[in-house]
Amino acid sequence: MLALFAYLGTGVFAVSGALAAARKSFDLLGIVVIAFVTAIGGGTVRDLLLDRHPIFWVREPRIGWVILGSAFLTLLFIRFRKPPKRALLYADALGLALFTISGAQIAEGFGLPALTIVMMATITGSAGGVLRDVLSAEVPLLFRQTELYATASIAGTAGYLLLESLGVDREAAAWMGMTLVAALRFTAIRYGLKLPVFQVPG
Amino acid sequence: MLALFAYLGTGVFAVSGALAAARKSFDLLGIVVIAFVTAIGGGTVRDLLLDRHPIFWVREPRIGWVILGSAFLTLLFIRFRKPPKRALLYADALGLALFTISGAQIAEGFGLPALTIVMMATITGSAGGVLRDVLSAEVPLLFRQTELYATASIAGTAGYLLLESLGVDREAAAWMGMTLVAALRFTAIRYGLKLPVFQVPG
Amino acid sequence: MLALFAYLGTGVFAVSGALAAARKSFDLLGIVVIAFVTAIGGGTVRDLLLDRHPIFWVREPRIGWVILGSAFLTLLFIRFRKPPKRALLYADALGLALFTISGAQIAEGFGLPALTIVMMATITGSAGGVLRDVLSAEVPLLFRQTELYATASIAGTAGYLLLESLGVDREAAAWMGMTLVAALRFTAIRYGLKLPVFQVPG
Repeated sequence: MLALFAYLGTGVFAVSGALAAARKSFDLLGIVVIAFVTAIGGGTVRDLLLDRHPIFWVREPRIGWVILGSAFLTLLFIRFRKPPKRALLYADALGLALFTISGAQIAEGFGLPALTIVMMATITGSAGGVLRDVLSAEVPLLFRQTELYATASIAGTAGYLLLESLGVDREAAAWMGMTLVAALRFTAIRYGLKLPVFQVPG
Repeated sequence: MLALFAYLGTGVFAVSGALAAARKSFDLLGIVVIAFVTAIGGGTVRDLLLDRHPIFWVREPRIGWVILGSAFLTLLFIRFRKPPKRALLYADALGLALFTISGAQIAEGFGLPALTIVMMATITGSAGGVLRDVLSAEVPLLFRQTELYATASIAGTAGYLLLESLGVDREAAAWMGMTLVAALRFTAIRYGLKLPVFQVPG
Repeated sequence: MLALFAYLGTGVFAVSGALAAARKSFDLLGIVVIAFVTAIGGGTVRDLLLDRHPIFWVREPRIGWVILGSAFLTLLFIRFRKPPKRALLYADALGLALFTISGAQIAEGFGLPALTIVMMATITGSAGGVLRDVLSAEVPLLFRQTELYATASIAGTAGYLLLESLGVDREAAAWMGMTLVAALRFTAIRYGLKLPVFQVPG
């Protein structure tokens, strides 16, 4: 079931990348590249930082086909209809939840301290979107306009680690952590919650 | 002979990076950095993703001197003359062909499936130019204005793998793959062939 | 003492990242991410390129807390006062000097030739700032407006390697190299020294 979820998360991230690239009038190749980067960027950065080889999508080549399929279906779909914005946002939140907690569990397997686990979990969930924006020469959405995107990852991972340290079963803690990520993100989208910005004087 | 070609490809990519940086009014250091990134970026990303160490230019330090020399000759040249645009485009296509197929052969050596080999070959050929554009805060040319750049890599690698699977000798297949990359790119430049873009409704 | 310097350099780089991000109206999360990237980006790229694992901040998790603390103190400070621009520039030059020579010594430990050591030292000192600018969708300051930033690294590393090859004690050479980096940077800031740019005809 988690494997199915992982493919689903990958597919949703690929769709969001393909849509962002198509909106910027990238050509077919650009759309496919951005779909790939969005979907596998976070896990790739995590695996490189942890020296975890072969990298997850090198080990599991079906991921590439899921992304290619998702990108082509997206292009087919937008020839006929508007993309369902809200549905995609919610699906993306599920992908974020899954990627975050799976990133946390991988980092846990390396015996890292809590702060480093939180960083790796957040990178797994968010770095793909940051790379998508960097490759589009845009300021990453993550840094200023999102409704608690990476923040939901951080809180969910912290919740997961806290529950584990309180003796909660690992799988149950993972489900609760994922629920926390998704719930925070849903709530933030629904009510437009954002983090504060700061003025620099002078 | 292939080693000679590799230095040639590296030099041409360094020249194209140096010219792009000089056009953007980067200073001497910026020009040298962009020359390096353009010339070794693709192979570096490939080596990192495949955990292939030492990275090719760490193992073969002469590459650094080829790049430095190419960058300085470029700066000297443009004090006196216009850069020969068309000649550089064709030289770049030869570099692309060589980098692509050498990347494919390295990926083959890791026993990867076809889709992953195509990805690694394309990254080897194109990621340096993408990094050059990202470091210049520009939308990568690759994603919207090129005449079948990465697409030529993909087709050439597919041709190479197909020929091999049909029993063609590895070296012959490599030459044919490189010819295919260069021929596609030449044709695309000559006739202005581009990939389609897609409209997102709503 | 060097360890203390390293935390100091890390803290100063984190402050400069946090300030740059706040100036761009990034939100709290964006500020923290940019502080991290600025402070650990250079060493991370170096460690990835050299396959040096665990990466320095994975091995030494206190670095993360130094960065978090520096970012939050910065945000607290700017609620009440202007950031002391000139003091920060000079502190940054000390961080650059330390990061550069420590990067050179790590690269030396891998038995690399001089050009590669200079590259690794410069990457250690400067890549964090480049990543900060790339993530802000800006042309890296390093490539066009800086007063001999990476150039000071290159000269200092060259001086360090030269002194060592002349038989100077390693630690003494390191101190002289660091002094050279900082002195060049101080002088360049004081007198507005910059590298030349080049015109591309046609």
